[in-house]
Amino acid sequence: MPGPLDGVVVLDLTHVLAGPFASMVLADLGAQVIKIEQPGIGDRSRASGPFIDGESSYFMSINRGKLGMTLDLSKARGKEILLQMVERADVVLENLAPGAMKRLGLDYPVLKERNPRIIYAAISGFGQDGPYAGKPALDVIIQGMGGVLSITGEPGGPPIRPGVSQGDITAGLFALIGTLAALHERARSGLGQMVDIGMLDCQVAILENAFTRYFATGEVPQPLGTRHPVTAPFQAFQTRDGYITVALADGRRDQWPLFCSAIERVDLIDDPRFKDGWVRSQSYQELEPILTEAMRKKTSQEWLAEMEALGIPCGPVNTIDQVARDPQVLHRGMIRDLPHPRLGKVKSVWTPVKLSRTPVGADTPAPDLGEHTARVLREFSNLGEEELRSLREEGVV
Amino acid sequence: MPGPLDGVVVLDLTHVLAGPFASMVLADLGAQVIKIEQPGIGDRSRASGPFIDGESSYFMSINRGKLGMTLDLSKARGKEILLQMVERADVVLENLAPGAMKRLGLDYPVLKERNPRIIYAAISGFGQDGPYAGKPALDVIIQGMGGVLSITGEPGGPPIRPGVSQGDITAGLFALIGTLAALHERARSGLGQMVDIGMLDCQVAILENAFTRYFATGEVPQPLGTRHPVTAPFQAFQTRDGYITVALADGRRDQWPLFCSAIERVDLIDDPRFKDGWVRSQSYQELEPILTEAMRKKTSQEWLAEMEALGIPCGPVNTIDQVARDPQVLHRGMIRDLPHPRLGKVKSVWTPVKLSRTPVGADTPAPDLGEHTARVLREFSNLGEEELRSLREEGVV
Repeated sequence: MPGPLDGVVVLDLTHVLAGPFASMVLADLGAQVIKIEQPGIGDRSRASGPFIDGESSYFMSINRGKLGMTLDLSKARGKEILLQMVERADVVLENLAPGAMKRLGLDYPVLKERNPRIIYAAISGFGQDGPYAGKPALDVIIQGMGGVLSITGEPGGPPIRPGVSQGDITAGLFALIGTLAALHERARSGLGQMVDIGMLDCQVAILENAFTRYFATGEVPQPLGTRHPVTAPFQAFQTRDGYITVALADGRRDQWPLFCSAIERVDLIDDPRFKDGWVRSQSYQELEPILTEAMRKKTSQEWLAEMEALGIPCGPVNTIDQVARDPQVLHRGMIRDLPHPRLGKVKSVWTPVKLSRTPVGADTPAPDLGEHTARVLREFSNLGEEELRSLREEGVV
Repeated sequence: MPGPLDGVVVLDLTHVLAGPFASMVLADLGAQVIKIEQPGIGDRSRASGPFIDGESSYFMSINRGKLGMTLDLSKARGKEILLQMVERADVVLENLAPGAMKRLGLDYPVLKERNPRIIYAAISGFGQDGPYAGKPALDVIIQGMGGVLSITGEPGGPPIRPGVSQGDITAGLFALIGTLAALHERARSGLGQMVDIGMLDCQVAILENAFTRYFATGEVPQPLGTRHPVTAPFQAFQTRDGYITVALADGRRDQWPLFCSAIERVDLIDDPRFKDGWVRSQSYQELEPILTEAMRKKTSQEWLAEMEALGIPCGPVNTIDQVARDPQVLHRGMIRDLPHPRLGKVKSVWTPVKLSRTPVGADTPAPDLGEHTARVLREFSNLGEEELRSLREEGVV
């Protein structure tokens, strides 16, 4: 059975992370994703380590399930081939600097002329317009400008970057949402449109809580270690031998008494300073020494066993190797061995989108540079062997 | 003009963050989102501070654009009303504990009987199956179990929680992607399906890079402050008066010489230890003292002006108040004053999904508990005033 996006053709002009991550999800959902790269150079993440027998593990991890072709969009024949492909495609996805596609004569108005149904999704640092539109942007710059760095770290300490490239990833996810919504609308109107995603916009959107607090109180949010800004306890604690997380659910008023009993401080149950999550977060300075002292008395395993028995939400602070062998992660099929023509099998992270009726997940390896050029050109441009040879000689593909 | 999801009816059984954030995006995209809450209690985030004249700013920030009704799903008449509504809905979205909907007799197989076209999206901590499926999970627990906490922080330091609830937010975004893909497929098959999103799965998916490095090298990723694991410089630096970020793009080999010239260390340009981003990230211990010493010599503004003039990607580390008045953020319309019946206007974060032809963004305020109960029941269940009165008396709505 085909995937849910079977029949959707995506021309993928993206590189490195936000775009390729998004187009990999489209491939997982069953779309035919054609990754188009500059001849001889390709996506610059092909040069990112670590390498497995010379193959970039980074590139492999965000490009599986795609077809790969080369096409020089600066050459007239390259442009014309792209436009021919646009006529038969549904989605164009790019994350070049704003203006780059226009300079190539391949921006949305031009593509729309050739195919009014095309959906053109662009991911950029700051979006297609505004005072910063021309500025270069990479993940840490966007996380810094969007405010996350300023609220990640120890209280009073230096900024910390979250260990995930969420500046890129969230922009990729919002681009997918916009693209899929535009596809839905196209079924009715028959018309495509442009999806303009700015990484900085996405940072503001996912920090709704920090902005909301600032607007409500005028207080500028600060880094809080592992704490949550509006409820407590909701954080990691140091135990006798490591760290665990504990988080009481707001609205589950039974959990605070159980937690107090677990840490042998039943005297706190009815203390008005600690009556609910919001109030506890506001009187945290008084609560903190009590909790940190108590939590150091037992090992992580002892605490997790006790708290789980009481139904208190808690968990280990896993390192990446521990996550990779976690029984739940394995049960959900999140780690797979994918076949690779030269490397045998390559361990890969799998899709988190689980559907009940249609399959999700593309298990072909990331393409070599230009691996499927001939196949794609035959299918989309009806080009024969001779024309292909001439394109190769001219460096168009 | 209607939004791209105009005509899509969403029954929203979600609470707190991952689910409400997702359904707010659906409302922004033009879907009719009906938030269904327990009579007299409602979404527990209504009790989360900070409050503006008694209204939860937290609740308001993730529930705009929705209709609000109450319905007691534990009562037979409440169940029957929900099932009647399911017959005329497209999507049911819930983030209850796995099993809760089944205990109510309202799980996907039951709903599908009433409407085979229904798309049932469930967000949970660990997904609907597996050894942890029954465990409670909240954002920090999932970020801990998924590995992000272990790679966020200072080298050798304690775990740090990213300042954004990305455990919840990313699960909401993947749930939207699955739901929209299922909607697309339904147009062909006429059938709905279940979308099963586990927050832990999503953490693994967005940490593709950390897992990939571990699989490639066997080395367990560690916290790196603000650094990037596979390229350098790509981080925040302390300046004479604060912090800025600098990030060189891999594949832009012109940037390293420019950066070396900016920090007056042209002797490093051809140093083989520092020849490209990957190599620099591997010899970072030698690079670090050079960079940190150099970057402390000027103020943030001096560095930003110099580096921008050279085309080196860089940016400020903004606090939330600075982001809220940033010219680009304002130009992109990311902060809006939304009308509110009692509070006048409320500042709100706007949607990052920008479409060129159909409008996006729902500007009605978050509903009061049960505000639209009568309206929704009239529309979906053809109930008259008398029946409504009896439902109220019985506590069904």
